[in-house]
Amino acid sequence: MLDVIFYIATAAEAMTAALAAGRRKMDWFGVCLLACVTALGGGTIRDLFLDHYPLYWVRNPYILLLVCGAALATIAMARVVDKLRWPFLLLDGLGLVVFTIIGCQVAIEIGAHPLIVLVAGMVTGIFGGILRDVLCNDVPLVFRGELYATVSLVTGAIYYFGLMAGIPSDTVILVAIAVGFPLRMVAIIRKWEMPKFVYDRDWR
Amino acid sequence: MLDVIFYIATAAEAMTAALAAGRRKMDWFGVCLLACVTALGGGTIRDLFLDHYPLYWVRNPYILLLVCGAALATIAMARVVDKLRWPFLLLDGLGLVVFTIIGCQVAIEIGAHPLIVLVAGMVTGIFGGILRDVLCNDVPLVFRGELYATVSLVTGAIYYFGLMAGIPSDTVILVAIAVGFPLRMVAIIRKWEMPKFVYDRDWR
Amino acid sequence: MLDVIFYIATAAEAMTAALAAGRRKMDWFGVCLLACVTALGGGTIRDLFLDHYPLYWVRNPYILLLVCGAALATIAMARVVDKLRWPFLLLDGLGLVVFTIIGCQVAIEIGAHPLIVLVAGMVTGIFGGILRDVLCNDVPLVFRGELYATVSLVTGAIYYFGLMAGIPSDTVILVAIAVGFPLRMVAIIRKWEMPKFVYDRDWR
Repeated sequence: MLDVIFYIATAAEAMTAALAAGRRKMDWFGVCLLACVTALGGGTIRDLFLDHYPLYWVRNPYILLLVCGAALATIAMARVVDKLRWPFLLLDGLGLVVFTIIGCQVAIEIGAHPLIVLVAGMVTGIFGGILRDVLCNDVPLVFRGELYATVSLVTGAIYYFGLMAGIPSDTVILVAIAVGFPLRMVAIIRKWEMPKFVYDRDWR
Repeated sequence: MLDVIFYIATAAEAMTAALAAGRRKMDWFGVCLLACVTALGGGTIRDLFLDHYPLYWVRNPYILLLVCGAALATIAMARVVDKLRWPFLLLDGLGLVVFTIIGCQVAIEIGAHPLIVLVAGMVTGIFGGILRDVLCNDVPLVFRGELYATVSLVTGAIYYFGLMAGIPSDTVILVAIAVGFPLRMVAIIRKWEMPKFVYDRDWR
Repeated sequence: MLDVIFYIATAAEAMTAALAAGRRKMDWFGVCLLACVTALGGGTIRDLFLDHYPLYWVRNPYILLLVCGAALATIAMARVVDKLRWPFLLLDGLGLVVFTIIGCQVAIEIGAHPLIVLVAGMVTGIFGGILRDVLCNDVPLVFRGELYATVSLVTGAIYYFGLMAGIPSDTVILVAIAVGFPLRMVAIIRKWEMPKFVYDRDWR
């Protein structure tokens, strides 16, 4: 079931990236490339950091077709997609949580330190969006967004420490999703944000 | 012969990067670094993705001297280079095609899936320019350019499927160059472009 | 002793990155992430380039706590930090030199070519700052700064050729620091800069 949500969330990430590309008037190729970077970038960087080869999309290249297909479908259906703001935010939030859990799993499998497990989850969950913003020439949204990274951290911590406590994997995954996903939704609705650090001198 | 074109194209990429650096008033070191990132970045990312170590410039470090030498020569000869617009576009187009073929070769050698072979060719051909634009703080040109990525994809597909069809390697390389290179030139002259995706809502 | 300076310099890099994050009104998470990228990014890219796994912060994850702790402390103490311009520039300069030496050491250990040793030193010393500037959406400062990269190159060359000449490691390290660190300080005070390449045509 995690796999199914993973593919759906990957496609959803690709579609939101395609809309971001459309806002910058990119051509169809740019739309596909930005979708790939956004949907696959987090997992790719995690795999590079952990020496976890082959990269997951090299092992399973059909995911590239899924991502490009979702991106091109977004072009065709931009008017429809436009009305689907809430479904997308739901899928995006679900994707964040699922990507995080999968990232933690990869790190646990190779016997990484608990801190690295949490980092692997966060990298998987949020670095795709960071790369998207860098390529679009924005300061990454995640640096200022609604608990995006915090949700990833909380989800990863529940998953890891649940497993360590001997709770069965399926149960832990359900609990992590059941906490992380609503947390993200509430953060969006209530506009919860991390406190900001504002510093306006420039001596460097 | 592919090797010779590869070195010439690498130097040409370094020189166009040096001009981009000059437009941003970078210092001599910045010129060399931007030249290295542009000329070597695509192959480096391909090698990282495919776990293909040592990186090709680590195995053959003299290519770093070639790139920095070409970049510094550009500074010395900026007035001359300025008049060489067409030779540069020719070398740039040839480089795109040759980089793509070499990228596909690396992926084929390690037994990658056909989709990954095409991706490896495109990454080698175009990611150097993407990194250059990110470091120069531009939205990458390739997202909006004249069939740049498409030429890479077509070249890679001819090369890969030609090899699979049992055609000798040398012949396939010549055919791939003979199609990809003129395609790029015509695209520049006729200003052929991919259709753009323009989307102007901002609900995210 | 090199280890002690390394940790201090890592914390100093994290703190200057935190100030840069504060200037962009990032939230606390963004401050920590930018600190990690800046303080650990150079060594990470070096390790990726040299296939030197596990990455140094994966092997020693507590360094992540050091970096995030230093970043959060900067938020708490921004008023104090503000008055510490000179101590920071000292630590930053020391860090540049020490990061460079450590980068060279890693490359020497794996038997790399002399050119690659120098590149590994420079990547370790300066790529953290480049990544910070890319994430902050600036053209990297190092492309225009006061001999930053040159100091790294000189330090690395002294270290490498000193070792090759049979001088004991401790002595070579001291000499490299004793040349590189004052060179950086004098460059700041005298505003020494590399010559710039200014080119204002735009035919590409």
